[in-house]
Amino acid sequence: MANDQELPSNWGRWGADDELGTLNLITEEARARGAAQARTGRTVSLARPIRPTPFVSGPFAPLARDSSPVQQIMQYAGDVPATVDMILVTNHHVSSTHIDALGHQVLDGKVYPGHPLAESVTPAGVRHGSTAAFAAGISTRGVLLDLAFDGPLPAAHPITPEDFEAAEARQGVRLESGDALVLRGGWAGVVDFEKPLPGVTLDAVRWMHQRGISLYAGDLGDAYPPLETAVPAPLHRVALPLLGMPLIDVAEVEELAAVCTELNRYAFLFVVAPPRIHGLTGVPVNPLAVF
Amino acid sequence: MANDQELPSNWGRWGADDELGTLNLITEEARARGAAQARTGRTVSLARPIRPTPFVSGPFAPLARDSSPVQQIMQYAGDVPATVDMILVTNHHVSSTHIDALGHQVLDGKVYPGHPLAESVTPAGVRHGSTAAFAAGISTRGVLLDLAFDGPLPAAHPITPEDFEAAEARQGVRLESGDALVLRGGWAGVVDFEKPLPGVTLDAVRWMHQRGISLYAGDLGDAYPPLETAVPAPLHRVALPLLGMPLIDVAEVEELAAVCTELNRYAFLFVVAPPRIHGLTGVPVNPLAVF
Amino acid sequence: MANDQELPSNWGRWGADDELGTLNLITEEARARGAAQARTGRTVSLARPIRPTPFVSGPFAPLARDSSPVQQIMQYAGDVPATVDMILVTNHHVSSTHIDALGHQVLDGKVYPGHPLAESVTPAGVRHGSTAAFAAGISTRGVLLDLAFDGPLPAAHPITPEDFEAAEARQGVRLESGDALVLRGGWAGVVDFEKPLPGVTLDAVRWMHQRGISLYAGDLGDAYPPLETAVPAPLHRVALPLLGMPLIDVAEVEELAAVCTELNRYAFLFVVAPPRIHGLTGVPVNPLAVF
Amino acid sequence: MANDQELPSNWGRWGADDELGTLNLITEEARARGAAQARTGRTVSLARPIRPTPFVSGPFAPLARDSSPVQQIMQYAGDVPATVDMILVTNHHVSSTHIDALGHQVLDGKVYPGHPLAESVTPAGVRHGSTAAFAAGISTRGVLLDLAFDGPLPAAHPITPEDFEAAEARQGVRLESGDALVLRGGWAGVVDFEKPLPGVTLDAVRWMHQRGISLYAGDLGDAYPPLETAVPAPLHRVALPLLGMPLIDVAEVEELAAVCTELNRYAFLFVVAPPRIHGLTGVPVNPLAVF
Repeated sequence: MANDQELPSNWGRWGADDELGTLNLITEEARARGAAQARTGRTVSLARPIRPTPFVSGPFAPLARDSSPVQQIMQYAGDVPATVDMILVTNHHVSSTHIDALGHQVLDGKVYPGHPLAESVTPAGVRHGSTAAFAAGISTRGVLLDLAFDGPLPAAHPITPEDFEAAEARQGVRLESGDALVLRGGWAGVVDFEKPLPGVTLDAVRWMHQRGISLYAGDLGDAYPPLETAVPAPLHRVALPLLGMPLIDVAEVEELAAVCTELNRYAFLFVVAPPRIHGLTGVPVNPLAVF
Repeated sequence: MANDQELPSNWGRWGADDELGTLNLITEEARARGAAQARTGRTVSLARPIRPTPFVSGPFAPLARDSSPVQQIMQYAGDVPATVDMILVTNHHVSSTHIDALGHQVLDGKVYPGHPLAESVTPAGVRHGSTAAFAAGISTRGVLLDLAFDGPLPAAHPITPEDFEAAEARQGVRLESGDALVLRGGWAGVVDFEKPLPGVTLDAVRWMHQRGISLYAGDLGDAYPPLETAVPAPLHRVALPLLGMPLIDVAEVEELAAVCTELNRYAFLFVVAPPRIHGLTGVPVNPLAVF
Repeated sequence: MANDQELPSNWGRWGADDELGTLNLITEEARARGAAQARTGRTVSLARPIRPTPFVSGPFAPLARDSSPVQQIMQYAGDVPATVDMILVTNHHVSSTHIDALGHQVLDGKVYPGHPLAESVTPAGVRHGSTAAFAAGISTRGVLLDLAFDGPLPAAHPITPEDFEAAEARQGVRLESGDALVLRGGWAGVVDFEKPLPGVTLDAVRWMHQRGISLYAGDLGDAYPPLETAVPAPLHRVALPLLGMPLIDVAEVEELAAVCTELNRYAFLFVVAPPRIHGLTGVPVNPLAVF
Repeated sequence: MANDQELPSNWGRWGADDELGTLNLITEEARARGAAQARTGRTVSLARPIRPTPFVSGPFAPLARDSSPVQQIMQYAGDVPATVDMILVTNHHVSSTHIDALGHQVLDGKVYPGHPLAESVTPAGVRHGSTAAFAAGISTRGVLLDLAFDGPLPAAHPITPEDFEAAEARQGVRLESGDALVLRGGWAGVVDFEKPLPGVTLDAVRWMHQRGISLYAGDLGDAYPPLETAVPAPLHRVALPLLGMPLIDVAEVEELAAVCTELNRYAFLFVVAPPRIHGLTGVPVNPLAVF
């Protein structure tokens, strides 16, 4: 990485052993700001549905199938009148809404906030920077910045602080320290690496750092191909490992945007409840916006 | 089963193809009642932590290990500076907080509300009564009934409507239609089949039916050994398949009870956000109480 | 099944607890007949190659892939200079050469030789009639009957004893008690259920019974659609469960046939060495012909 | 590694893209020498039995279990009268008889015979030096060297060329080029890392190189703790990556030794038939000695 000195960083800010990263910014005040948004209880999921691929055996099993983040095995229950199954889950999958743990990215042999990789991530699981940090649940205020209010962002569009502030002005809302930023670029469900994807710039990450964003979720993330060669993936190579900001990849925000427009309200209680499994580099999650 | 006529049932109540069961009771009114409970945003998880069992290979892999609901495989990422993993999840596991889908229990060859098993549950996944019903998230008012306020329930104690109503009176709260009932029996983390477990009676299930409970979560469920031979497991053999009531098995409610006592408040916004995976018989979940 | 009385059966022939079935026919004499065939040591595999499907994660993982009997996960080895992996294997797969254990087929709630299903096959594995019977390896004389010497069998051709005896006469070889029958129909690698598949008739199974065939392997098995409605799949519904004859499904015999023709010799030492794993209903295998 | 120049090596001997390594030594002559050993057809397995760990779900699943190389899942077959299952296999496991592929060991970022790791071993499987090299089966003469004829080797005993030659003299047999060496140290099934394990010295590996051993199998392998600090594991760090010699780890040789003693014959046809799966770093195998 070109010049780490110039990159925004929270290494050391909350101690050498910190595992929460920007979740530290969710103070009592931020939490109450979130709770104040829950009024009618109307709830919207920000997760894409996952249809598992079956493990079917026998001569008539389907021979071709798409890749799914989840593979399901229906189990034999003997003579018990219950049905049971198990699943195999690819935690980081291009079509699964999932949360990245801080140990998911490695920078010069280290994970946030400077822990040696070999001590942090072992063949037997993640010891530092795992999903254990999220296991008790996250709740704070979420704010949607809808950059696709008049249509999807153009291919290869670089998302800048100006885009964020224009959306704030247009929507009459301002992101405060501890809030979760939910971004809509209008690229729902696009998994096509032939076409340049728009994405977040390093300046946008600096802006998030200054504002005190605790958590990022979006239907877009890092651009592909990279916008800047020096720092090719600002969310995954700067925000996550240097700021310690958890990322919710592949969020589904179409219904959310429709509800925000309908209610003319872009803030909500944002509740993220990953399965309480320790030691993972990430895990599928069903983030909920409660209005 | 002795006499189905006499058992409480919602078969047909919401149509022959219904997949929501008692979640239908979460009306706009019930939802708003839940949202009204979110004030400070303080959040408590009702899930037990899961520590995965690693799949470690090589000569120095550990040879003995406990059973875990989750097995984790750290994957080889080649020369990409990221860490990745996958997990194998046993959806119904005695030490995992999970939600049972309505297709999990079979009654006389049928699942709720009367669908033939063979059409509903296939080797390739659940077609009717799966986790798809929960995928958009559940939010409603939750109420803790703390039956262990002065110590754990005695072994083999039959939990009755009287226990529920005494708790309501003691706590100054009343379960309304659409609410989630969260039960504490004081048996946190007990997985010992040598000792008789207390559990819910058929009368208690009738009471839930009359009150309009939408969802059950508890550190106790069905008694073991069964309390009544005619209906050996009222939650799993009546509430789930006949009422269509989803069950959250193996909830962890110790911290919840402590917070309720501290705040002298037993109702909260209850948010359940299972991973949005269709077609399963159940799935681990991290239920959150937001105060 | 129409009339079990009239079907050939070995139930009771080797005792009520027998797990070897027709492998009992591999006597010392049969074994020596096999060994006598090993002369030059030239070895031919009868297995189809399996190319595993990778479990790849990350943003650039392939999204479409074919079904494979084996899925492979490359594991993270930490700082050990070794590469390690694990595999998930579907034991019965239409494109995998595998051996069926005797507990694989159920007849009127029983498995060979009349054991109740519930006692034999449990959610925790097969207790009677599993791959444990093959675990020490099988070696005997194998004989190829090449029914496709002048081209593939026509679609829907019913394979009869006359076909077998014509091949014996043509090739100058005779199957004796304890031998393995290897069949070539010339349908290598055909997995197309749109086209009627030729297959073995019930009369052909009776013939195998009379001759004392110990083991069947072929590029064809049961016809599809079934030839006879009363007994739709004579190999899987009669030979395996009633005779106790293990079946090697989806054998690859093209190279074998070429070598037999080249050497003008249709008998060989046939060695089958399934991984020594107990309790399975079947397992992929690499059968070898040693000349 | 101290001084690669002085270590025995076959890099380049059979070309820069060779994947067979010392299996190249199994010439027609060596193969015929093996076949000549098959006389009575009596067959002995050199594999340890594997009892899979079940994936059982539900409230009464066993909570404690040993680690097994194989985990088994009994699958739900719907209304088909067949039983089916799948398995998860840890290819390199301390209690599983398995064959190491040449890509399993990495030397200075390279695998045999000098291929860069990143090109050879990918997250999607092994491209060079995988089990594909064994997929057609291995047959050659095997010779047991029984170093435990009068009791197990002492703990930490260094196995030397003198041990080998004393056994040859005692048994009246001589290993020739292309033969497989099967070693018995009398440590069957010992998996106790508290006690020093005997093991093969670097000189013994040099001897194998000189003799032209094609394949190694033994109940002992590399010593633990290492005998020599400069070359801590001569089989896995020299024979496999530099000579290109496949290793069969954790062979079970007690029954073999008993039969050799009974017959007073220490050579046999050695048949190794790994499941024909490409792209793996290793795989469980059931090696057979045919007498």
